[in-house]
Amino acid sequence: MPTTDPIAFTRQLRELRQTRRFTGQSVPEDVLADILDVARWTGSAKNTQPWHFIVVTDTSAIQILSEAGQFAGFLAGAPLVIVVAMAGKSPRSEPYDEGRLSERIMLAADAHGLGAGTGWFAPGAAGEERVKHALGIPDEMRVLQAVAIGYPDDADQRARTVIGGRKQIDEVVSRGRFGTGSR
Amino acid sequence: MPTTDPIAFTRQLRELRQTRRFTGQSVPEDVLADILDVARWTGSAKNTQPWHFIVVTDTSAIQILSEAGQFAGFLAGAPLVIVVAMAGKSPRSEPYDEGRLSERIMLAADAHGLGAGTGWFAPGAAGEERVKHALGIPDEMRVLQAVAIGYPDDADQRARTVIGGRKQIDEVVSRGRFGTGSR
Repeated sequence: MPTTDPIAFTRQLRELRQTRRFTGQSVPEDVLADILDVARWTGSAKNTQPWHFIVVTDTSAIQILSEAGQFAGFLAGAPLVIVVAMAGKSPRSEPYDEGRLSERIMLAADAHGLGAGTGWFAPGAAGEERVKHALGIPDEMRVLQAVAIGYPDDADQRARTVIGGRKQIDEVVSRGRFGTGSR
Repeated sequence: MPTTDPIAFTRQLRELRQTRRFTGQSVPEDVLADILDVARWTGSAKNTQPWHFIVVTDTSAIQILSEAGQFAGFLAGAPLVIVVAMAGKSPRSEPYDEGRLSERIMLAADAHGLGAGTGWFAPGAAGEERVKHALGIPDEMRVLQAVAIGYPDDADQRARTVIGGRKQIDEVVSRGRFGTGSR
């Protein structure tokens, strides 16, 4: 049963944003343990838990990750990166389960006052395969993205308050039938 | 900035479970509005927000949804179902974004003392196409699943406490390199 105030809890969900600039401060071990435990408890299709998390803090390894895709560059500035390796057995449900997982990692980091951002690897030799090779991840697994975690840089915090709006409720919700509006 | 206690917040994340049996009580409008607002604020690739939510409460429509897949049957007992229609433009990122979205809907429902469960539609004519036809969803969109919301049946609540464990941390976490263990 939930123990937090529902309004405070859902406000925190609403206000989650990607963090892409971090201070140099490292992530405390007890906070990392709590985040990984939240990740571990993520639900998945038929409870297969088709994932493995590789926690990377070595600067040269993080540098390699940051060069593995156009949308991975910001990883270079993070003190810690969780690379998510998926089993590669269920193309229909695994990306969906990976989204659930990553959202929870970001929410758990945010709850502890840290920021998190997802870096996407390019497909093929220049991206995914390079990451797998660097971290010893088996060929049959699938590596789509990684979640960087750290303390948000102040400038990034300010940027987060002004960018990234959303469509209005009427644009994304229908009642009973597609296109009927939200009321 | 987070206002809830981090430990209480992450406990709530950890304790989230699927609900598949509901009482007959309907979902209050203000709670539904809060859940849909959390859904609306979900992050997505390049902030495309590639989704539309169809809120279904009509019993005969829900019955049709429940017959659209082997893992959709329990929807028949729910007072409300949010069918998620994705744009169908980015097969690489959309299922991931849909996972993020669904996780947030479940967390928001849970925060309000409700339960939520995801029902999966079969591909093709017997599943996805039937749902699209019933709800007037455009052909080009993709409908993978729907999230049922309602007050959890007591028996279901008890069942949730004893089933669905998870792998241990050492089985799912490595440090620095795949297979090195979590310490």
